[in-house]
Amino acid sequence: MTRSQTPKSLAVLLRARMHPDPIPSPPPAAAPPASPNPSAPPAAAASSVRHWLHASVSAAYPSPAALDCFSDGYRSLDRGGRHEILRSLATDYDVPRARVRDLIRQYVSVSATGEGDDEHPGAEREDGGAASALYRMERGLREALRPKYAGFLEAMNAQPGGLKFLAVIRADLLALLGEENAPVLRALDGYLKEKLVTWLSPAALALHQITWDDPATLLEKIVAYEAVHPIRNLIDLKRRLGVGRRCFGYFHPAIPGEPLIFIEVALLKDMATSIQEVLLDVPPIAECEAKCALFYSISSTQPGLSGINLGKFLLKRVIDMLRRDMPSVQIFATLSPIPGFMQWLLAKLASQIKLAETELQERNSLEGAGSTFRESILLPEEEKLIQNAVEQVDGKQGIELLQDILKSTQWVKSDKLSAALKSPLMRLCARYLAREKKRGKALDAVANFHLQNGAMIERINWMADQSEKGIEQSGGIMVNYLYRLESIEEYASSYSGTGHTHTSPSLS
Amino acid sequence: MTRSQTPKSLAVLLRARMHPDPIPSPPPAAAPPASPNPSAPPAAAASSVRHWLHASVSAAYPSPAALDCFSDGYRSLDRGGRHEILRSLATDYDVPRARVRDLIRQYVSVSATGEGDDEHPGAEREDGGAASALYRMERGLREALRPKYAGFLEAMNAQPGGLKFLAVIRADLLALLGEENAPVLRALDGYLKEKLVTWLSPAALALHQITWDDPATLLEKIVAYEAVHPIRNLIDLKRRLGVGRRCFGYFHPAIPGEPLIFIEVALLKDMATSIQEVLLDVPPIAECEAKCALFYSISSTQPGLSGINLGKFLLKRVIDMLRRDMPSVQIFATLSPIPGFMQWLLAKLASQIKLAETELQERNSLEGAGSTFRESILLPEEEKLIQNAVEQVDGKQGIELLQDILKSTQWVKSDKLSAALKSPLMRLCARYLAREKKRGKALDAVANFHLQNGAMIERINWMADQSEKGIEQSGGIMVNYLYRLESIEEYASSYSGTGHTHTSPSLS
Repeated sequence: MTRSQTPKSLAVLLRARMHPDPIPSPPPAAAPPASPNPSAPPAAAASSVRHWLHASVSAAYPSPAALDCFSDGYRSLDRGGRHEILRSLATDYDVPRARVRDLIRQYVSVSATGEGDDEHPGAEREDGGAASALYRMERGLREALRPKYAGFLEAMNAQPGGLKFLAVIRADLLALLGEENAPVLRALDGYLKEKLVTWLSPAALALHQITWDDPATLLEKIVAYEAVHPIRNLIDLKRRLGVGRRCFGYFHPAIPGEPLIFIEVALLKDMATSIQEVLLDVPPIAECEAKCALFYSISSTQPGLSGINLGKFLLKRVIDMLRRDMPSVQIFATLSPIPGFMQWLLAKLASQIKLAETELQERNSLEGAGSTFRESILLPEEEKLIQNAVEQVDGKQGIELLQDILKSTQWVKSDKLSAALKSPLMRLCARYLAREKKRGKALDAVANFHLQNGAMIERINWMADQSEKGIEQSGGIMVNYLYRLESIEEYASSYSGTGHTHTSPSLS
Repeated sequence: MTRSQTPKSLAVLLRARMHPDPIPSPPPAAAPPASPNPSAPPAAAASSVRHWLHASVSAAYPSPAALDCFSDGYRSLDRGGRHEILRSLATDYDVPRARVRDLIRQYVSVSATGEGDDEHPGAEREDGGAASALYRMERGLREALRPKYAGFLEAMNAQPGGLKFLAVIRADLLALLGEENAPVLRALDGYLKEKLVTWLSPAALALHQITWDDPATLLEKIVAYEAVHPIRNLIDLKRRLGVGRRCFGYFHPAIPGEPLIFIEVALLKDMATSIQEVLLDVPPIAECEAKCALFYSISSTQPGLSGINLGKFLLKRVIDMLRRDMPSVQIFATLSPIPGFMQWLLAKLASQIKLAETELQERNSLEGAGSTFRESILLPEEEKLIQNAVEQVDGKQGIELLQDILKSTQWVKSDKLSAALKSPLMRLCARYLAREKKRGKALDAVANFHLQNGAMIERINWMADQSEKGIEQSGGIMVNYLYRLESIEEYASSYSGTGHTHTSPSLS
């Protein structure tokens, strides 16, 4: 249950923690016939897996036995063997381009004769053979544009255990893409992701409240996969499932006994300002007195489902359920980490310090009049506060001092430093959350998740997460995203349309 | 619970019974704003539904509220109003052909420059921009070839209740196609069916054994939807769920409390030869003595899922489960109706009688030497038997006598007629099942279902279903299809490949 706490681990929501071996490989049910010796070298095993891959992909209706042999064999491969198979899948069973070109030629010739030139062929010629032919061709072309592995993925998904296996495949593929970003592999990932989105439609997922009555096999998964605030022991787990708390999971029938994603909720009198109040040993309030449902953790369990937004629908359904069951609850909000804040701030400081040095040299050589890329990260009074808090100033600028301080997490132990940093960090954090964008979306992954779901940024809280990870990721700051029921749809649509971020007046 | 017993009702398996109103419309949760008066004339309501349709289909992310307004409004429409909406959906939101032609032009020009001319662009130019562009274009073209309503259907499926609503839409669409078989409507049906197949992948379905402990709301659905052998009363239902019997349903999380399809199983010492032994009041054997699992009824519940083979996977999973739980069971077989036999035989008799008349005229006019389309339906000894059984012969041929006899179901009440018909009907039935094909598949829908799942035709049974419906559909004959575990895959693949039908030696 130990876990590394690297600052880069955006371990929440859209990206699940990448376990070294995401899903432990069960012993192969039946060794592939071509390699009966389980201790055979990986090279031999890979060729046998490749055989089953070919048998599965090239058949019109792949046999369940061949699919099983392939998946068992694949799981038994090491990293290199798996990557080889993935490259073969992507490259050898790509889009049949010759066929596509043939069909395009036919389609264009039909269009050219004027028969298919009409935008609404069916409307005018109700039962015309030409219209029928056009629709048939369009369907044929759409199908030909699918890679040859399309049918194989469908058949695998229909197998018992197949969906989970495809999630393993995708996790491996994402790891491989990190090493070699080839277009053919990206195309495989894009297609597989598209299919997973369809198969994991909210219609196929069942919402289940996880309680202390659930089997230990399920509860141990909650402990293992809780990615935001690690569960320390059984008492901690029991508290998170007990009075004043809720835990809901989204389950798929093909992956029983294991949620794909789960959310933890605290029922409180008001929106919490720190995670300590939520997790620590205060007795919970009577549930009938709760006014606020606070979502304090969302964790996904399958690294292979990365980028598939299951959380959006989970949140929506949990809010609906709580509204129905607990009419006294009026506030639906989160207490969320800000996983990218420190990383962003340190990068910003480094680049500004670099620019300042360049500028200094330029000024010394009497060349320039200041770079247009310079910006004032710190306000004059903030700079002064920091300089006062640090005893030996030796001519360094405020941003250099700030960079030095933030290089370790020791500053939280000094009241003087904490007091000096509070004002600039809170201000910069608000700016980071509300204004820093990447392709029109919030730079912070968690912020983007809640904003696209229709939340607003309500409040940021100082010293809200004093864990090592909390200080390292966000200087201990946490944020409350608020779901205003009457505005969820409007906010979601304005964010996805124009990237507009709704924030409370206190933040701007 | 009364039901009509028309001879054409192929009420089983692939085609569910079409209830006059497949799913009772719930009162609209919220009347569409544009038509606040629920008693407004259908014309006004249809225009409001059309408004919500447009709002839903044209948005990149249709709002749940708009989708709800559309589905509530649609359900409140009468048949004509619904058909109007379906025509609009199919025609106004068809494939964007202008865009397809644009993209094809770009794709062809890229291919023409030789950049995309390679079958494996990714293999050689690992990170080449040209390969990336090619994959992007192919994906774009594949997406453009989807009708504009594609996103709307996806969004509807993701809504609570959406999957069931789409099944209602498809049931209405199938009814409309029966009246006007327009290519544009067929294209909508084809696309919707394709999506339903994906959403209803076996991975998304949960198998549940239905027992007397299940809620009455579920059990009443079993009674209502049992399409093969109607459940007469509560005692009958209880027997079908009790000792020596099993009932399994396939459930989808989006349609809770209602199986999409269910199968009834009897645990017997041997393969039953008549449905009376299965349904009537004989005490069941001790389950540990059972050697045969007899599938005696499969019913689907959603007319809108017609043509989507859910039964295949249900059968497979039920067989797997029974094998695991009951090792003494060695025989997996069905006792199945032959819904198309009488219809086929009567059509055959009519056409042969017609041919015989023509031939007679030709012979009288000394013109021809017998039609090549004539065939001997009855063997000489069968003809003689029938002539002996019927007292007044007055020169009629055997096939004419047979046609007369089969026009009503009264013949079963005469021992003499029954005895005379047994031999020809059994022989012709075996031929109908094993040799009569349509596009390479068995003409009989139930035969095609089991043969494509990998069964063989094991035995046909005289007077196996003496109900009015049984006599009318198949002269009371029923068939045992046998699932030989070691041959299921082989039989399924030879049937789907070459149309070869496996039959036991006794039948040929």
